[in-house]
Amino acid sequence: MPLVKIATQKALNAVERSCLSQAIQEGIENDLKAPPNDRFQIFTDHPSGLIYDKNYLGIERSEGIVFIQVFLKKGRSPEMKKCFYSTICKKLGSLGFRKEDVFITLTENDSIDWSFGNGEAQLAK
Amino acid sequence: MPLVKIATQKALNAVERSCLSQAIQEGIENDLKAPPNDRFQIFTDHPSGLIYDKNYLGIERSEGIVFIQVFLKKGRSPEMKKCFYSTICKKLGSLGFRKEDVFITLTENDSIDWSFGNGEAQLAK
Amino acid sequence: MPLVKIATQKALNAVERSCLSQAIQEGIENDLKAPPNDRFQIFTDHPSGLIYDKNYLGIERSEGIVFIQVFLKKGRSPEMKKCFYSTICKKLGSLGFRKEDVFITLTENDSIDWSFGNGEAQLAK
Repeated sequence: MPLVKIATQKALNAVERSCLSQAIQEGIENDLKAPPNDRFQIFTDHPSGLIYDKNYLGIERSEGIVFIQVFLKKGRSPEMKKCFYSTICKKLGSLGFRKEDVFITLTENDSIDWSFGNGEAQLAK
Repeated sequence: MPLVKIATQKALNAVERSCLSQAIQEGIENDLKAPPNDRFQIFTDHPSGLIYDKNYLGIERSEGIVFIQVFLKKGRSPEMKKCFYSTICKKLGSLGFRKEDVFITLTENDSIDWSFGNGEAQLAK
Repeated sequence: MPLVKIATQKALNAVERSCLSQAIQEGIENDLKAPPNDRFQIFTDHPSGLIYDKNYLGIERSEGIVFIQVFLKKGRSPEMKKCFYSTICKKLGSLGFRKEDVFITLTENDSIDWSFGNGEAQLAK
């Protein structure tokens, strides 16, 4: 159910994209408790289109910044969200991303707001 | 008022984009009851940037997947939303898209959250 | 904290993008009362990907349309939002954009929904 948009400056290669995809998905399944295989991700790159503060909140961001925007239905607790941020950051760290470069934001909606195909509202039973 | 973002893997040609635009807009006007001509759509293509499960919820998705993300103000009933999903899926089906490939999600906000030009909040009267 | 997505038809050059970035940021800091340096913006261009009504609500839009989508946490009053729209429109006008071409929409979330790096939820203290 989450729809995840991942924006980077440089285009990722297939391996990088696949690893990033998997790391995010593990956080979504383990911490946000999405069902297995509920993976829908849109990657974009913006060679000259990202403008961001390099030091806001004292966090030193580099050109390797990764914007992760997650659209998901309501219902995750603050603790689950905190775990998710921490997990993603650790997993991306193990892939070579700097932890300062992991920017995440969530936007919530309702069960009725999702159709996964076939013209049905599968979550609104 | 809806702002609609449509993401496909392959770039659409002008005719395909125009047909898809019209189909979505008809659903928005007829089912979500947006006013006529209230059409604002952003199409993007992602030749290597879409990662999604090919079988989540038992729906077999192909490379022809279409992600339709609709930002709109609150106020549509669950029934209206269900009709919208069904309509879009049927209309896209008649254009040659597979019904399994039509992914839709909605994100709502308030009347005050829209400015259609001229620096005014036209819906917040 | 706002994450701002700016979509234009034609790609902006570096100077145009920088001016637009600064104008939007001033509105965000002055009218929406975001902290200084809280700037996170993603620019995209869509040479053939924007479809929009040229006259909806009697506003004559041109190919110079600018879609500004702001994701921010809750808490701004209607008056603050109205000032923001007006400010952005004036500032963009001074940069050569037509005021009819400034389309803005806001989507809100909560303090817990932001991580600015390091895997922490910095606004949820």
